[in-house]
Amino acid sequence: MRSLSQRAGDYPDPQMVTTAALAARNDAVRAQMRRLGVDTLLLSLGAELPWLTGYTAMPLERLTMLVLSLDAEAILVVPALEAARVEPRPELFALRPWAETENPIDVVTGVVGRSRRRLGISERTWARFLLALQTELPRSTWMNSSRITSPLRAVKDPDEVTALRRASAAADRVAAELLTSQIPLIGRTEADVSRELGQRLVDEGHDTVNFAIVASGPNAASPHHHPGGRTIGAGEAVVCDFGGTMDGYCSDITRTIFTGEPPEEFLDLYAALAGAQAAAVDAARVGTPCEDVDAVARDLITDAGYGDQFIHRTGHGIGLEEHEDPYLVRGNRDPLAAGHAFSVEPGIYVDGRWGARIEDIVVATDAGPEPLNRADHALAIVEH
Amino acid sequence: MRSLSQRAGDYPDPQMVTTAALAARNDAVRAQMRRLGVDTLLLSLGAELPWLTGYTAMPLERLTMLVLSLDAEAILVVPALEAARVEPRPELFALRPWAETENPIDVVTGVVGRSRRRLGISERTWARFLLALQTELPRSTWMNSSRITSPLRAVKDPDEVTALRRASAAADRVAAELLTSQIPLIGRTEADVSRELGQRLVDEGHDTVNFAIVASGPNAASPHHHPGGRTIGAGEAVVCDFGGTMDGYCSDITRTIFTGEPPEEFLDLYAALAGAQAAAVDAARVGTPCEDVDAVARDLITDAGYGDQFIHRTGHGIGLEEHEDPYLVRGNRDPLAAGHAFSVEPGIYVDGRWGARIEDIVVATDAGPEPLNRADHALAIVEH
Repeated sequence: MRSLSQRAGDYPDPQMVTTAALAARNDAVRAQMRRLGVDTLLLSLGAELPWLTGYTAMPLERLTMLVLSLDAEAILVVPALEAARVEPRPELFALRPWAETENPIDVVTGVVGRSRRRLGISERTWARFLLALQTELPRSTWMNSSRITSPLRAVKDPDEVTALRRASAAADRVAAELLTSQIPLIGRTEADVSRELGQRLVDEGHDTVNFAIVASGPNAASPHHHPGGRTIGAGEAVVCDFGGTMDGYCSDITRTIFTGEPPEEFLDLYAALAGAQAAAVDAARVGTPCEDVDAVARDLITDAGYGDQFIHRTGHGIGLEEHEDPYLVRGNRDPLAAGHAFSVEPGIYVDGRWGARIEDIVVATDAGPEPLNRADHALAIVEH
Repeated sequence: MRSLSQRAGDYPDPQMVTTAALAARNDAVRAQMRRLGVDTLLLSLGAELPWLTGYTAMPLERLTMLVLSLDAEAILVVPALEAARVEPRPELFALRPWAETENPIDVVTGVVGRSRRRLGISERTWARFLLALQTELPRSTWMNSSRITSPLRAVKDPDEVTALRRASAAADRVAAELLTSQIPLIGRTEADVSRELGQRLVDEGHDTVNFAIVASGPNAASPHHHPGGRTIGAGEAVVCDFGGTMDGYCSDITRTIFTGEPPEEFLDLYAALAGAQAAAVDAARVGTPCEDVDAVARDLITDAGYGDQFIHRTGHGIGLEEHEDPYLVRGNRDPLAAGHAFSVEPGIYVDGRWGARIEDIVVATDAGPEPLNRADHALAIVEH
């Protein structure tokens, strides 16, 4: 009943990114801060810190925080025992290590200053640190720094698209092994197959495994199923959704396999799903509102009679994080832009019975949608 | 240059814990809330939610949050597509799944109510959610829920100690393989050895690998070194610090190896370190203030002339999280209690040259300190 469940983005390898590229991002962020009247960003956990500095904070109780002010040099406040992990980039930030008996909140508030400020804090910063900072800086107002950074991060530059392409190609190779029966399913537990998918992602070049969902039989109706001790049998749908991080950028792919000859009813369901997924990929064009891509998939699935069984949004942005802007969901009217990278992953879930999902990563380009995943979309039928 | 860096506590396997045991914890928490005048706890990421419900929130952008009020049934607000992951425990909480186009902040504020409340929020909750809740609940005041839960969580019950003992024993087996040269070092990269340590933790029964630091040569002077492409040579100190999660509970062990015959100078350093570590373990007795255990190690290392090179605290609590209360650090006057579990891990770091650290997990008991790690503490000298 054991599954090697792993999360990425925590201690990733340094990205191969030049200081010049980071400096351009810092400039864009400062320009956006000026536009929105934000004085200082406080960046801790999450993708913003590595995106701007090349350094990722450890997700532990010792605070790491970049203080990025409009009117001063950026300061990276970091635990002294982790200072040696930081690749110095004096053009971008100064280092302020804090010792074990110092209070890092005092260090940060000392750098920020106690005058009234408009502050943005990174969205994954622990609530503990935000509460402590709010106590020390009672005159300041707070916002989610993603309002500044997220629209900028969502547009991937060519190097980032290359990294995403490589990660998707690696995930495709694992998917191909799955679809062609090189990874046996019948008679194995979900957890065991999950572990093998993770191992193969690493073998194909991933640095970390973020997740490897294997949902078989009735479990396939649970989109975020936790792979467990259930043994996969014959005559079952198996949804495999896996991804990881490679040189800092994420992969994420889903394919559905049937163990044995599928009943007509499942073939109908799968045909509706595959048609909807392909149509949504094709609809993911520059200028199209995100919610319209969701609607394309949803309308087709609804027309086929499965509308109530498509219980999640169509997709999420992807980059340094597995899930980031833009989200393909009803209510998100933001138009797709060239360089946006996102998943297109409708699913149909029949409670207690079976389910199916197909997912590709896609980049919106001026020449149309570029799907990064090429693994076969036809329903794979395996005999073992 | 690839390392399989993994983090636990994110999608762990369900703990084997009875509803009755969880109910006792819930009662203790409510009693403590009453004592401190806290109306409601809002628990998302981190150990408190699984400790009280057996369920761990996925660390993603869709909010999972337990609303635990003094005067009402507890409600677990969870994304609809993850509801099937939750093992229902109607004696403890009701489930409130939210659909993709609902706003979970509205759902939580609806449950909490808009009257003036004293609210505690779990410390690892994303700042994004705290900011959104503060906007919706402007009359309420906020605190870190750890003030309620942490003193309770720090005292492990016998089942928890058993789980910690098993995890430490598994880590000990990997350490023994390392100390007896079954895991070769010379000529391999740090990242490669790190990956093998992680794999062996899994082979020995761990569900997840939290970290596997391998710091060789001058890198051994960096306590939280990120294992990279450096090839381990002969005549070097190698600090290996690794741990993971097994049935929900964490392991964490450090041993230092020398590749070849160590110089006298290193033997002196190691002897001082080993003496300090053993003395600190022996000092970890019920009733002793945490900072006194730190002082025992620090004073001995200082007397030996390495005081400036012991740049971190002596230890951290361990349980469902790798790092939790109690912290063995100057300034923490809280006395150790029976059932407290923590690391004892002094280190000596000589910048640019070498370093060493020895770490065991220890449980304070009324009969004295019980070290959970038994792997050999002598400096291991390996020839390959």
